[in-house]
Amino acid sequence: MTLPAAAKRSLVDIALENLSAQLAAGRWPLGSRLPTEPELAEELGISRNTVREAIRVLLYAGLLEVRQGDGTYVRAIVNPGEAMRAISRASLREHLEVRCLLEESAARLAAERASGPDLARIAAALDKLAPRDGETPEDYAARDLEFHVAIADACGNQALASLYRYFSDAVRQSVQDSIRDEALPDPDTAAHAAIYHAIRDRNPARAGEAAAAITRPLLTELAQLLKRQK
Amino acid sequence: MTLPAAAKRSLVDIALENLSAQLAAGRWPLGSRLPTEPELAEELGISRNTVREAIRVLLYAGLLEVRQGDGTYVRAIVNPGEAMRAISRASLREHLEVRCLLEESAARLAAERASGPDLARIAAALDKLAPRDGETPEDYAARDLEFHVAIADACGNQALASLYRYFSDAVRQSVQDSIRDEALPDPDTAAHAAIYHAIRDRNPARAGEAAAAITRPLLTELAQLLKRQK
Repeated sequence: MTLPAAAKRSLVDIALENLSAQLAAGRWPLGSRLPTEPELAEELGISRNTVREAIRVLLYAGLLEVRQGDGTYVRAIVNPGEAMRAISRASLREHLEVRCLLEESAARLAAERASGPDLARIAAALDKLAPRDGETPEDYAARDLEFHVAIADACGNQALASLYRYFSDAVRQSVQDSIRDEALPDPDTAAHAAIYHAIRDRNPARAGEAAAAITRPLLTELAQLLKRQK
Repeated sequence: MTLPAAAKRSLVDIALENLSAQLAAGRWPLGSRLPTEPELAEELGISRNTVREAIRVLLYAGLLEVRQGDGTYVRAIVNPGEAMRAISRASLREHLEVRCLLEESAARLAAERASGPDLARIAAALDKLAPRDGETPEDYAARDLEFHVAIADACGNQALASLYRYFSDAVRQSVQDSIRDEALPDPDTAAHAAIYHAIRDRNPARAGEAAAAITRPLLTELAQLLKRQK
């Protein structure tokens, strides 16, 4: 890397740290409008281009948002990227464990809150779930995910549903990368049906248990596979 | 905004979308090294500066990491920013509910896994917890957070601990912003001691219950406050 580029990178990083710190300190409360680029450039004593680059990073990370024709607004005070960086350093076992916890919680909450259309969506995903002749593990995994995401979306908590999606994707990717030739146990359709029935019957405890009946063996099996690979 | 700046912003955005899509499609697996900036610039038909800006964004969002003197590596395939953007749109009730779920799970797991030093740290935080004359709510909240984070850190799952920190911070900020003049119930020290004792006694079920005994009333109370504010 040439020196001027390195110097430029470092100015953006400093601007980024400065803006992150001021956000975290609450200078601009949640939902408030950020000063304009020229104002921030003036205040930080840097070029507008540098301010713009730093703001782009904060937009992508979800701390700021642009409202067209209006300005840049504060959407989060705490940097979710920080948390996610730490999370991305966690192991596959840790990811899978969190996914299992979220799955149980989502099933319990869905039993309390699922609407009619939610139930219909879960039932439809269950109908399509049975393994098919000649399909790849990825094909089955996609339908399996559809079923579980339908439950997560029925739990009445968007934050939990988003976390569930994230951890499912992350786990699936890691499992595919690290255990290509080993087969994790495929849970049977009856076990999935048990979750749906408990949700339909409005029985949170039974829904949580039914979800755990699928996820816990998976966690045990994975722990053993990882141990054998060492 | 001047036109040239807008045009430049859009090139970086296109590069960013392109790189994100290729990461998501698995072109560069987890843990692999990204091509160099000149190689990517050549491939995408854009300037190195534009590539560098896009990579900075992906670094900050936690998808890539720089290993000094080596190169840029893939650290996550799924964009955590996407999940976090959705999470940041969730309501305070949803955030608090997720925090409560994580808190119960962390307490249960800590009862199974806390090490000697973990237990000592939780006990020390508990010793300091009792409310003090003339302190601000923020002072108490900081010690309360210390206690709960000590439990989260003892749960043997870094992903769960990071999520707990994130949701605690986000909730605290939102609560401070939206319910300035209302007092949420301050849970008493005995209730906190019950969590510590259950963890020390290696009793996961009791630890989870003790954590829930603090968090559930909080959730109910918040739901009522928010209803009154409407």
